[in-house]
Amino acid sequence: MELRHIDEIRTIIATGRVFTDESDRFSYAFDASFGTYLPDIVIQTKDVKEIANLVKFADRELIPITPRGQSTSLSGGPLPVKGGIVLDLSVMRDILEIDEEDLVAIVSPGVLTAEIHKAAEKKGLFYPPDPSSSHVSTIGGNLAENSGGPRGLKYGVTKDYVIGLEVITPQGEIIHTGGRTVKNVTGYDLTKLIVGSEGTLGIITKATLRLIPKPPASTTVMAIFDNLVDAGRAISKVLSSGILPSKMELMDQASILAVENYEPTGLPLNAEALILIELDGHPAAVSDEAMQVSAVCKEIGARDVRVPQTQTEMDEVWRARKLVSPAIARIKPTKISEDITVPRSQIPEMCRRLQEIRQKYQVHLVVFGHAGDGNLHPNIVCDKSDHEEMRRVEQAVTEIFETAVQLGGTLSGEHGIGTMKSPFMEMELGAVGLDMMKRIKQAWDPNNIMNPGKIFPEPGQKLVLTDE
Amino acid sequence: MELRHIDEIRTIIATGRVFTDESDRFSYAFDASFGTYLPDIVIQTKDVKEIANLVKFADRELIPITPRGQSTSLSGGPLPVKGGIVLDLSVMRDILEIDEEDLVAIVSPGVLTAEIHKAAEKKGLFYPPDPSSSHVSTIGGNLAENSGGPRGLKYGVTKDYVIGLEVITPQGEIIHTGGRTVKNVTGYDLTKLIVGSEGTLGIITKATLRLIPKPPASTTVMAIFDNLVDAGRAISKVLSSGILPSKMELMDQASILAVENYEPTGLPLNAEALILIELDGHPAAVSDEAMQVSAVCKEIGARDVRVPQTQTEMDEVWRARKLVSPAIARIKPTKISEDITVPRSQIPEMCRRLQEIRQKYQVHLVVFGHAGDGNLHPNIVCDKSDHEEMRRVEQAVTEIFETAVQLGGTLSGEHGIGTMKSPFMEMELGAVGLDMMKRIKQAWDPNNIMNPGKIFPEPGQKLVLTDE
Repeated sequence: MELRHIDEIRTIIATGRVFTDESDRFSYAFDASFGTYLPDIVIQTKDVKEIANLVKFADRELIPITPRGQSTSLSGGPLPVKGGIVLDLSVMRDILEIDEEDLVAIVSPGVLTAEIHKAAEKKGLFYPPDPSSSHVSTIGGNLAENSGGPRGLKYGVTKDYVIGLEVITPQGEIIHTGGRTVKNVTGYDLTKLIVGSEGTLGIITKATLRLIPKPPASTTVMAIFDNLVDAGRAISKVLSSGILPSKMELMDQASILAVENYEPTGLPLNAEALILIELDGHPAAVSDEAMQVSAVCKEIGARDVRVPQTQTEMDEVWRARKLVSPAIARIKPTKISEDITVPRSQIPEMCRRLQEIRQKYQVHLVVFGHAGDGNLHPNIVCDKSDHEEMRRVEQAVTEIFETAVQLGGTLSGEHGIGTMKSPFMEMELGAVGLDMMKRIKQAWDPNNIMNPGKIFPEPGQKLVLTDE
Repeated sequence: MELRHIDEIRTIIATGRVFTDESDRFSYAFDASFGTYLPDIVIQTKDVKEIANLVKFADRELIPITPRGQSTSLSGGPLPVKGGIVLDLSVMRDILEIDEEDLVAIVSPGVLTAEIHKAAEKKGLFYPPDPSSSHVSTIGGNLAENSGGPRGLKYGVTKDYVIGLEVITPQGEIIHTGGRTVKNVTGYDLTKLIVGSEGTLGIITKATLRLIPKPPASTTVMAIFDNLVDAGRAISKVLSSGILPSKMELMDQASILAVENYEPTGLPLNAEALILIELDGHPAAVSDEAMQVSAVCKEIGARDVRVPQTQTEMDEVWRARKLVSPAIARIKPTKISEDITVPRSQIPEMCRRLQEIRQKYQVHLVVFGHAGDGNLHPNIVCDKSDHEEMRRVEQAVTEIFETAVQLGGTLSGEHGIGTMKSPFMEMELGAVGLDMMKRIKQAWDPNNIMNPGKIFPEPGQKLVLTDE
């Protein structure tokens, strides 16, 4: 970046902070995915007008600008792959208002998602989206990536709760999309276009989120199966019996083994699958539904079904699921987390194909995830300094994507495309489908300054997981 | 339209029907809103490839093409305001598949929404969106307009249930957006962009809809209030007490009077408001919640609270609400149905302002609607041959829109913009917000052939409700 650019940026960012030292910039060079890309300059400001002026300047001078929250992204969204400006929005966290009458929350992008959960619950309300990272990730990042989480099954994902946005366009104009009402059909739905667009269409500086009344009770059923196909059948059977659980989580044998090696919780090592089903709602409904769910699981042939009776027992049951990620992270230094999603009926087949892929490429593959909505997390643990292993991982990941799409599924259920999955976009969308997306990007951001290098593949781009 | 165009269209539409007689075309000149526009030609075909070729031809020859379902639209969506081709998709109704395992319905655009309700319920499943016209309107029309309905309060609107589309682009290419999975973050959300775009971005030829388990029980509470503000307070209080009803409908005094004049149902003529609250879910939850809701209404000061005990009593209670539309349609020959939506907290204020508007312009204004989500239907009954009256109606409608936007609401909650509300778009969206929408239209349909004259106002366009 030229010196005159840095000087001009310092003038624009009058109330905020500007970082140019390499040591400072290095903290902004990576996220929770793969690869390191040093930005030329890092900006922190809470002032919307300063951000708008910064974008105007970037658009005029053709400087890339990458907005960023806490960078817990698993797909590369906040990586400044083309250098330029990183805009750190985690400092923009002044607004967190809960309006009990309108049933909405108004939030700044830097507010942590868990803070919204807490503030809403304090007033008897509920913000359902619950990405696993919610205690460290910002709502701005959740909005950019359209984050999901276990509760997606019953309650949907981030997008389903966003009814209004304040956005800075790629030309530095401030617009307001949607509003404070759940129903709104005034023109094209820019709100839902921008949520999940990974910072490529503008910068979200404020959001209005829909809240719902907090369900007064919840309970959990844990069922252990000797084989994975039975677990899949139990999931289908529950869902077609008139019950919509708030969560339906699956752990395969590799997940169970990883957890038991990491911190023994007493799970049977020879079980092929474990499912955890959370029910929420009215207390009478919840306890009756827990009985029905238990009966279904036993009927399908569960080896063991447990319904915890106290909060402590309930926490204990969920502990195994929460330990999966830390447990597998200990096995090898590099963890590639995928989040393919298949139609529910294809979960058993997807699991079978994943077992084949594990054999074929001799990779350490662990499968867990939100089975109720078909969103699986195949994780490959590996060592990125071992180039031969990483080649096999690249092939395994490619085949996982191909299989998901073949089975009528999608590359990404909740992590986003970013840099990691852009080479596979055309496989899922077709050339024309991808072109229709590009037309929107070009119409909104003709100078391609907003988070360039994301979502859309470069010509000939392939998945590369080594730093070679 | 030139003769060579008609000849070429006949060649393209090999298996379908082509209408050119004025008497046939006239049936396609209007919808349930305002104005008559004769198309040059009307096409019926079930063949997606024929439609794609028709669009390619229209794009090449710059001929407007307006897709249409049953034309129950209240905002002008299916009106061929620029002439050209009307494509009648109501004949495309071969596919109505319910997949119990994946919890989805696959539907052709001409299938009636009520048929989807029935097919899903037969398998213990539920397609929640319930526009009042569902027994006569097509799902294709619901998708184009993003239709709502009373259940929007708890279950959301059409868009919330669409996870995949087959679409013919304005260049006649067939694309598939989304898929069969609820979670999907692979690129921009074209599905939710196209739903609600009123046929201006392409033609929907197939849709994948998400279904949920059918709630096993439901009940209703009817509460009658001496004043409207108390009714509004009761609605807020119920929603902040941890209960999310499936419907919360409001009728004002003018609605009650209209119904009682039309077909006496025993409602008190001096009550200022009546609310109907439907609760659904587990039987134990539903009956307990009905007691809580009744208690809240009594505490706020309801004059009378009734909980019907049998299905017959329940049907009786909902009859009054269902009679509102036919009752007011009898008062005068023309009915202008609006659907402004305000934040819930503004419902009492909006009702007060509507009373002022009724006085100021001396119009016959009736208010009812889905008060739980802030979506009100101010209906003005008038006589379109009385030009002086229609001028007052135009002014009253304009002031209704201005008031809704002033109170933080929107022009349209569920009816769409079409021709009726396009003059007011910039007032709500601002010039830049509207421009960002236009850029998408221009990028996708540079020749402006897809349903031209909708959503986006022509320069200087004003609301005109007379045929002068």
